[in-house]
Amino acid sequence: MSLALAASSGVKQHIEDLAIFGGRPLFDRPRPVGQLDAPPVDRYLELLRESFEARHLTNDGPLALRLEAVLAERHEVRHCVSLANAALGLTMLMQLFARGRSGRVAMPAFSYRGLPHFARWAGQKPLFCDVDRETHTLDPAALDARIDAETHSILAVCTFNSPGDLDGLADVAARRGIPLFLDSVYGLETTYGGRVLGGFGRAEVYSTHATKLLNGFEGGYITTNDDDLAAVLRWQRNFALPGQRPDCAVGWDHTLGLNAKLTELHAAMALASLEGLSAVVERNQTRHEAYRHQIEPIDGLSLIPAGDPGERRNFQLAVLDVQPAWGLTPEQTLKVLRAEGAAVSGYYSPPLHLTDAVDPLPPGSLPVAEALARRLVQLPVGELVSVEDVGLIGQLLRFLASHGAAVRDRFGRT
Amino acid sequence: MSLALAASSGVKQHIEDLAIFGGRPLFDRPRPVGQLDAPPVDRYLELLRESFEARHLTNDGPLALRLEAVLAERHEVRHCVSLANAALGLTMLMQLFARGRSGRVAMPAFSYRGLPHFARWAGQKPLFCDVDRETHTLDPAALDARIDAETHSILAVCTFNSPGDLDGLADVAARRGIPLFLDSVYGLETTYGGRVLGGFGRAEVYSTHATKLLNGFEGGYITTNDDDLAAVLRWQRNFALPGQRPDCAVGWDHTLGLNAKLTELHAAMALASLEGLSAVVERNQTRHEAYRHQIEPIDGLSLIPAGDPGERRNFQLAVLDVQPAWGLTPEQTLKVLRAEGAAVSGYYSPPLHLTDAVDPLPPGSLPVAEALARRLVQLPVGELVSVEDVGLIGQLLRFLASHGAAVRDRFGRT
Repeated sequence: MSLALAASSGVKQHIEDLAIFGGRPLFDRPRPVGQLDAPPVDRYLELLRESFEARHLTNDGPLALRLEAVLAERHEVRHCVSLANAALGLTMLMQLFARGRSGRVAMPAFSYRGLPHFARWAGQKPLFCDVDRETHTLDPAALDARIDAETHSILAVCTFNSPGDLDGLADVAARRGIPLFLDSVYGLETTYGGRVLGGFGRAEVYSTHATKLLNGFEGGYITTNDDDLAAVLRWQRNFALPGQRPDCAVGWDHTLGLNAKLTELHAAMALASLEGLSAVVERNQTRHEAYRHQIEPIDGLSLIPAGDPGERRNFQLAVLDVQPAWGLTPEQTLKVLRAEGAAVSGYYSPPLHLTDAVDPLPPGSLPVAEALARRLVQLPVGELVSVEDVGLIGQLLRFLASHGAAVRDRFGRT
Repeated sequence: MSLALAASSGVKQHIEDLAIFGGRPLFDRPRPVGQLDAPPVDRYLELLRESFEARHLTNDGPLALRLEAVLAERHEVRHCVSLANAALGLTMLMQLFARGRSGRVAMPAFSYRGLPHFARWAGQKPLFCDVDRETHTLDPAALDARIDAETHSILAVCTFNSPGDLDGLADVAARRGIPLFLDSVYGLETTYGGRVLGGFGRAEVYSTHATKLLNGFEGGYITTNDDDLAAVLRWQRNFALPGQRPDCAVGWDHTLGLNAKLTELHAAMALASLEGLSAVVERNQTRHEAYRHQIEPIDGLSLIPAGDPGERRNFQLAVLDVQPAWGLTPEQTLKVLRAEGAAVSGYYSPPLHLTDAVDPLPPGSLPVAEALARRLVQLPVGELVSVEDVGLIGQLLRFLASHGAAVRDRFGRT
């Protein structure tokens, strides 16, 4: 369906025009919340044919090595270790840093739902900590207050709007003598203090899943300046086979091996996508500014800023802060938008400490995480969302702003 | 280099002609021990272009679904759950069957080095058991004697020459009330009692790594007739997200999620390879018969039979049994062959219980596994090994048979 047609159907006159109440949806196809960039298919297939014909398909294939070199340079670090996916990278680091002890991984409670599972695969429990109100990242003071003798590593998570207080976190980690590492999936192409992310903490983990900034279909990698850690990770990702044990692995007898190698099929895709990465960030910024332009004038709504304007940013997500002055609850807002074909979702909601099966905390324990999880809504972004789409979403939100009471009533009746 | 040239350099007249003592190697490029079949590149790229253009790249993409349907039919089971790799599949089953308890996974001590690591990722320890002298698979009586109250699952491993005593193992599992599952990586395209593998035990795990019979570059899958288990595995492989919890997962709160999905890039490769699978098995059989023809007349050496001739077999590996009558030790034999460019290796040597860091057993505990690990040598196989190559290896072995004493002396001096 053409954009022009979609646009003409976008005008809502009455609340019956809202799709949730039976009207025609704004979008004929869901507008997603992921990046979903795709490089030119021919460029990809060309790289792949090379690799196919060389018959070197896994285990340090030429494309995986090339990708690692290019990414190490881009992140200004000594090592990039490519991986089958980012989740395995986080799990591997949790396992390595625990050094064979059972214990805890400190992590923000306002974050990705998979993290506590990864900790448990690594024989650890999650230690949920509260986050900063503005940046939504792990709060160094809250972390410091929660750390106990069983805490063997600290996982900080970059959000799309901030890498977090990396100096403050590094201070806590150094004072406590606990390794700090970062989930930097949302930190790609951003800076902290003017320095590009990649070399902070003991290691950083990135994803090249199709929904992320750099699309390798699937995949991930770890960046680090620690030579020994890089060698151990390379050994670990290929089963930690005794015959391939690196010399530096003397103190790493606790290493559990697995299969977490990135294949050439995925390395080819990430390499092809890398060529267009800067352009992707530019398009993200255009969309982000369109959202800001649409949302700024609306009472009770604001768009979370994309980060410190003095730093490099990636504008990867668009997150709406739904305040009490907005007539609808975030849940109602989600329902209305979803019915229109905007595949919106809550943003890290509910927080991890209220849902974790192993280590839940009582409500009220981590107030900032709980407050954020109640008010943030993720809006459609990425290559499948046009600036016109953003305009339609803005128009819809303005319609809701002026018909809030009627919509609320109608919700009350259904 | 042409085969003719390689052949002319193959003739060894004196022990100085052996590459290990400075002679010219038999093979200019290593002859590997993996299958390494590759489908026509154009067929693969065609499938991939389809998927690329549909922009549905992970999470139940059309090619992954097609692959699952084709494999379920081929294995005569209700469900095939495709996975990023077989190692993750084994780890997932160990974690699920333990039902949140720490404990043990019973497994053969004569098997793949990764298995004890997978058990530990799943919060379990390995319980090593001895194997059958002929089939090299888990011995039901030895298993029964070792099982304790902490044993939460039984992992049986198919070897290239036998699926094992599946009735005997099922009896033990049923009597003890412990789930039995199979690592069937080497059991693809074989039968037990005339029935194709896939539906034995609670589940079977297969690999589609490039070195295995069915080449998906990388990847794996689980076959099962258990509807609930299949639904839980599909949920688990995509992070076990709360919103995607299947109804049947009520008793499965202990499930840990991870990212273990197979992407379309790999599904395309496996689908393209499937078309040639029967031809691959035929070529394996030809090579196997060539090996048998070469090795049968040599004193002190024998080729492990490829399995019960009354069943379907895949002839995937060629494994040499080095007996005392053969003049050289298995280690010396390996060294000589490797120097000639035959990338041979020990076969499951040393056994797992003598090397495991967590749960080693004293030497002598599992005598069959220990005896086998001392005498078996894996010979080059797969698509990169021609029948002429097999002839050259046979010629080399006959040369060693008639010059054993001199070679032994020369080893003694160096």
